[in-house]
Amino acid sequence: MKIVVIGAGAMGALFGGYLSQNNEVCLIDTDAEKVDKINKEGITIIGKEEQKTFFPKAFLDASQVGKADLLILFVKALFSKQALEKSKSVIGEDTYVLTLQNGSGHEDILKQFVRRDRIIIGTTQHNASITERGCINHGGRGCTNIGLLAAQNNVLDSIKDSFESCGFDMHISEDIEKLIWDKLFTNVSASVLTGVLQVKLGYLIDNSHGLFLVERLVKEAVAVANGDGMDFDEQEVLEKVKQVLINAHEGYTSIYADLRDKRKTEVDTISGYVVRASRRNGVPAPSHEFIVELVHALEDK
Amino acid sequence: MKIVVIGAGAMGALFGGYLSQNNEVCLIDTDAEKVDKINKEGITIIGKEEQKTFFPKAFLDASQVGKADLLILFVKALFSKQALEKSKSVIGEDTYVLTLQNGSGHEDILKQFVRRDRIIIGTTQHNASITERGCINHGGRGCTNIGLLAAQNNVLDSIKDSFESCGFDMHISEDIEKLIWDKLFTNVSASVLTGVLQVKLGYLIDNSHGLFLVERLVKEAVAVANGDGMDFDEQEVLEKVKQVLINAHEGYTSIYADLRDKRKTEVDTISGYVVRASRRNGVPAPSHEFIVELVHALEDK
Repeated sequence: MKIVVIGAGAMGALFGGYLSQNNEVCLIDTDAEKVDKINKEGITIIGKEEQKTFFPKAFLDASQVGKADLLILFVKALFSKQALEKSKSVIGEDTYVLTLQNGSGHEDILKQFVRRDRIIIGTTQHNASITERGCINHGGRGCTNIGLLAAQNNVLDSIKDSFESCGFDMHISEDIEKLIWDKLFTNVSASVLTGVLQVKLGYLIDNSHGLFLVERLVKEAVAVANGDGMDFDEQEVLEKVKQVLINAHEGYTSIYADLRDKRKTEVDTISGYVVRASRRNGVPAPSHEFIVELVHALEDK
Repeated sequence: MKIVVIGAGAMGALFGGYLSQNNEVCLIDTDAEKVDKINKEGITIIGKEEQKTFFPKAFLDASQVGKADLLILFVKALFSKQALEKSKSVIGEDTYVLTLQNGSGHEDILKQFVRRDRIIIGTTQHNASITERGCINHGGRGCTNIGLLAAQNNVLDSIKDSFESCGFDMHISEDIEKLIWDKLFTNVSASVLTGVLQVKLGYLIDNSHGLFLVERLVKEAVAVANGDGMDFDEQEVLEKVKQVLINAHEGYTSIYADLRDKRKTEVDTISGYVVRASRRNGVPAPSHEFIVELVHALEDK
């Protein structure tokens, strides 16, 4: 497969790197220095037990890339529209577009660039951050879920096979709305808290107060999701989130890095999604409302 | 009057300094260097328009002080019991004990050292912090309220007169339970938020997200207070809190300094009081529960 990854941040580089083992991978990024470094030195991924370097191609200019079989969007949600505008030439009649971005609601932007039945929504439990030397720290691994936004077809099977041959643990989801919610639970609890508290993911399972906050946010989010007709089990979801905290114990999140570096975060596409659903369906989410405002107040400092 | 102030932190030094104009004031503190500095150089208070130096006496050892007419407790609530144990000799048959500490519930500890009818509960809108050179920055001024825990008598009038002669704006409260709640509203909203966000008080009125959080916390606290039989008006309380934010715009709080310097905070006697009342009377306070755990998670980092 020809796979184009837009956004060579920590997660884009992680996927781009591993997938380049059995695919033609092109990374597109707006940072000329980073593009240059990848083309010269490759992408070095530091896992818990091993360190590997991969050599996908990297580009500043999407027009040099050609049409993709699969485009994976890994830019921050704030920049999705802009990134897709600049990479239009990569999207052909048969290109599938997969979003593995944090948060939910990305399909609204994707629809402006690709047919609904070409959109794939994905979630992943992998965690990655950029080290000081520009390597990728693979902080945690886990399952990657994918599902088609519209009609089902067998494209997901070939994507699953291809990703699995590169070391990813893949799962195909047939209930896309459930997948969207499922994707949110870790983001709206643990990820947001690592930002506000400025801690690693593992702190939230090691510290009883951190865990209280995770539980509170998961509980409210599950209630709001079920108010939207889902049937999530609170305890099951909580166990999954805890498993992520254990697997990615030393991992940092993008919202942690954003607040540390005084950048705008994606909190409106993450916790904001729960708040909007709560206002729509009437199930209260006071802690999510609170944390959205808290993150914005921190951004504005 | 012979006034003994226990705890020469920012607020203790502020009150001790001003009150020494027309009273015999003794400050007691556990920091030998600070005691020495006060005895040699006095206490310099930097206000918005003027700077003044006062020379109350300072002591490490309470046994040198003798009996007080009025003892003012200004240590952090965490250390109240310990401080009173060490200063027992100051409390005679006729000594009144005034707590102007942050938060509520201090009377439970005071009762172990002094008769109920000698306990005075107070609140103050003054704000003070210690500057780098060890001076007191008088960040904001406002009213100081005092009320007797048990039976009324005219001791409050003489205290009022004495404090007013030293420049304090005093008010006697006859409804002690109301005073306790009144005292809490700014603490459990603005003060706690300055700790979590690490900002000056004024940020919370300048930033719309900060103000949202203040309003949310005030609203919940007023509802819980009214669930305890009070009759506070939400809008009136909010206006008062906002006025504190305007008056003490450049002020820092003790919870801000505690979290900055990685010390334990007083959040359990502040927001924790609202949480306990909420559990007792059934009026929900989810944001206070959330922020108590958030502060503890920050303390433990």
